[in-house]
Amino acid sequence: MAPKTVLIVYAHHSPSSFNAAAKDVAVQTLTAQGCKVIVSDLYAMNFHAIATAADIKGKLKSPEHFLYAEETFIAYKEDRLSDDIKEEHRKVAQADLIIFQFPLYWFSYPAIMKGWMERVLTRGFAYTLQNTYDNGLCKDKKAVLSFTTGAPETKFQPDGINGDVNVLLWPLQNGVLHFCGFQVLAPQIFWGPARASPSERKAMLETWQARLKGVLEERPLSFASSELFDLSVQAGARLRPEVKEAYASQPYGLTTGQHLDKPLPPNNQTKAPPYDKH
Amino acid sequence: MAPKTVLIVYAHHSPSSFNAAAKDVAVQTLTAQGCKVIVSDLYAMNFHAIATAADIKGKLKSPEHFLYAEETFIAYKEDRLSDDIKEEHRKVAQADLIIFQFPLYWFSYPAIMKGWMERVLTRGFAYTLQNTYDNGLCKDKKAVLSFTTGAPETKFQPDGINGDVNVLLWPLQNGVLHFCGFQVLAPQIFWGPARASPSERKAMLETWQARLKGVLEERPLSFASSELFDLSVQAGARLRPEVKEAYASQPYGLTTGQHLDKPLPPNNQTKAPPYDKH
Repeated sequence: MAPKTVLIVYAHHSPSSFNAAAKDVAVQTLTAQGCKVIVSDLYAMNFHAIATAADIKGKLKSPEHFLYAEETFIAYKEDRLSDDIKEEHRKVAQADLIIFQFPLYWFSYPAIMKGWMERVLTRGFAYTLQNTYDNGLCKDKKAVLSFTTGAPETKFQPDGINGDVNVLLWPLQNGVLHFCGFQVLAPQIFWGPARASPSERKAMLETWQARLKGVLEERPLSFASSELFDLSVQAGARLRPEVKEAYASQPYGLTTGQHLDKPLPPNNQTKAPPYDKH
Repeated sequence: MAPKTVLIVYAHHSPSSFNAAAKDVAVQTLTAQGCKVIVSDLYAMNFHAIATAADIKGKLKSPEHFLYAEETFIAYKEDRLSDDIKEEHRKVAQADLIIFQFPLYWFSYPAIMKGWMERVLTRGFAYTLQNTYDNGLCKDKKAVLSFTTGAPETKFQPDGINGDVNVLLWPLQNGVLHFCGFQVLAPQIFWGPARASPSERKAMLETWQARLKGVLEERPLSFASSELFDLSVQAGARLRPEVKEAYASQPYGLTTGQHLDKPLPPNNQTKAPPYDKH
């Protein structure tokens, strides 16, 4: 097997944090397996998180009505993006797997990582209007969200005060990663490490380390294939009638987002399906 | 009725954008009704979006293991937060209603607005560990997300390629706004204005203008009352057994997130319930 490249996009301030330890375990474990590991340490890099016209060198097409996605699409094609974006593009281009390591802030990744998504997943580089989801430009790459929570797992159940974690994950995993074509692996969720004992934290890291040994061979979460949708403007990119008919007798919806007014398929955004049964 | 104060947190680069027009309609309509309207124009302010130790004046409690929420909680109580955060706190403190006006970026608000949430909704100011959800410190205030999409509405249906917009809204509305106690009003969603004709765009703004005339009297979206949960550490903040029992015979779950493995209650995050029937 050719050596693989892993990019870790990492967002925590403190080198003594659990997130830092999880990142370090990934660097060590993957390096020991012969992988090339690259880390984008966003706070340490002082990564600029705001998408603005400053991301484009040279003349804007429509300075009087600036549209970020349009302008950066053109700038990408003409090699006029800012140097820091180009540097992140070089890292992503090499990567077979991207690990996003962060603390969950307000049911999402930190703003500095949201800014990475907005600035680095450039139209033309990560997707185009024609190339999204199954056909996204990152379809040969894998991605995994690895994050810590403040709250315990019980709060993120379908009867917990924060609601089902699968609902929280849908916009992050479908709306960003799968949208660009990434094969999204099951998230690695570290539940409340700040309240855990040292031995519990150690056990969490050992679980992650064990998983990392096979992470590059993991099969992804299940999303709805783009082929199931009528992508014509008239149809509005809704599921084809025959697909809906086939699902009418099923107990669950297709995915967390495409739930078809049925109960959500359990663990859709947290566990890969049992592929051997398919 | 005493005059009301409305804060508009606004995130778009361009004064010629539809978002700018929606913000301007809100300023004009609410001002004409006698409201005091304050605008935080995040890009124009060059709002600093990244939560770091620089947000705290003076000595950190644990510089070797920096935890943002902990350190800013202490700094808030000791009046040692940075001036820009204090300025936003002053605006929020006055506001009866906050309107968040933004283009949907990657199924969420732009990073600059995510940064506003992280830095301004400080523990101690917007919530405490004991004061969340129904008891959040912003419980006497209303909030509304007003945003534009690139995609048409059909793509955000339960059978659309982007999935149900209610799922996308749950982390934004429950995980941030309701978490701090805000009474969350139905979102104002402008579907694909960039692809609409000038007369369609005008009609969208007129609908918004008409809504704004009564927005301060609107009843909020329905979330699960904190009283329904057993908040003890042992129980893990899950719904009380008697509540689950009462819902067992219902066709739908309680909310988008607390779905109890049942179909999601339709429009839970997009339409206020018909209160007169309750």
